[in-house]
Amino acid sequence: MGTSSGGRRVGRPRVVQRPDSGLEPRAELLAAAAELFTTHGYAATTTRAVAERAGMRQASMYHYVSGKEELLAELLESTVTPSLAYARELLADDATPAAERLRALCRADVELLCAGPHNLGALYLLPEVRAERFAAFRAVRAELKDAYRQLIAASVSASVSATASAATAGAAGGASAKGELELRTDLVFGLIEGVILVHRSEPERPAREFASATADAALRIVGV
Amino acid sequence: MGTSSGGRRVGRPRVVQRPDSGLEPRAELLAAAAELFTTHGYAATTTRAVAERAGMRQASMYHYVSGKEELLAELLESTVTPSLAYARELLADDATPAAERLRALCRADVELLCAGPHNLGALYLLPEVRAERFAAFRAVRAELKDAYRQLIAASVSASVSATASAATAGAAGGASAKGELELRTDLVFGLIEGVILVHRSEPERPAREFASATADAALRIVGV
Repeated sequence: MGTSSGGRRVGRPRVVQRPDSGLEPRAELLAAAAELFTTHGYAATTTRAVAERAGMRQASMYHYVSGKEELLAELLESTVTPSLAYARELLADDATPAAERLRALCRADVELLCAGPHNLGALYLLPEVRAERFAAFRAVRAELKDAYRQLIAASVSASVSATASAATAGAAGGASAKGELELRTDLVFGLIEGVILVHRSEPERPAREFASATADAALRIVGV
Repeated sequence: MGTSSGGRRVGRPRVVQRPDSGLEPRAELLAAAAELFTTHGYAATTTRAVAERAGMRQASMYHYVSGKEELLAELLESTVTPSLAYARELLADDATPAAERLRALCRADVELLCAGPHNLGALYLLPEVRAERFAAFRAVRAELKDAYRQLIAASVSASVSATASAATAGAAGGASAKGELELRTDLVFGLIEGVILVHRSEPERPAREFASATADAALRIVGV
């Protein structure tokens, strides 16, 4: 916007610069955006405020990112991309029982959602996230959910073979089993993402213990 | 603001008035706010936009509500107050087994969270909700969570008596049982509120079926 730095800014509170973190400029901008989006809100945060918090002028910021939307997209993706990478590894690992792989995914996903100083999952519910700009985030999240679906289906099917229950095996083959699988997937995925709301209320709860308990709860929901 | 109606409004998109609903003015304002807060965002919605969407002038709006914050507070409270009233009834109903009462509360709570044309639970994660103005909402939500805690404790204790498991009964008496109860309460409450995220992605899923499945899942988490 070409405002000379140090000029008087009317009607706009000065944003305090973050302490020197030694981060690269782009990482610094992401850290500043994470803090401001979760504490002040996305709509209420200007690109200028992000730049100031990151200790640079707004004009310099555009060397590193195209704007607020790119920062939000990258923050959102950072909450699902590592879990999806891990989920792909787990899907390929046929040697490990499905229920164990499901437990590992749940635990890692909860730890990721509780990681970092800011609860980035809170950004999922922004109305802005429905926009085309965030299609990549939504696609990664959908693929992650599909990995849960596959691991849940494999866990149930292993459990059915083990118990050789004719009634359950019968149901597992029909159309109602597909509905049942969707329902279990929604419940497990909802339990995992529900951690975002728990973490918001109880930010001090140790993530590792909570991740492990959530993974156990997911297996109980699946019924294995 | 005293702007004459019909005057040219510069730089502000005109909000289309809601179809005539026959609602009282205050209810009309709440419906307009619910729609705009969840689709455009709370920070991005002006009181003027709410008034216009409700079919009245901004000055008239102030006869009915003090502003945007009051509308948000009332919308948030509408997502927890009916469940808390029901929870109190259930807590007083000693004749019904605790697990059944827990199931009933989960079902009713999920149906409430999925009710209405707008996903009001999405507003829980707004940074603004941390402000003093929304203490009443947070208090009702905390009391609702405490009702879950009591019903979970009673369900577990009934289940322990029934099975007379010495190991479980021993754990249920100690300090670790308190931590365990907190953990189960967080998991169940997270599962229930996680419905907000599921409902956002799958708005077409029938609430009744989903509520019932979520209640079953909650009992599995509790282990009864």
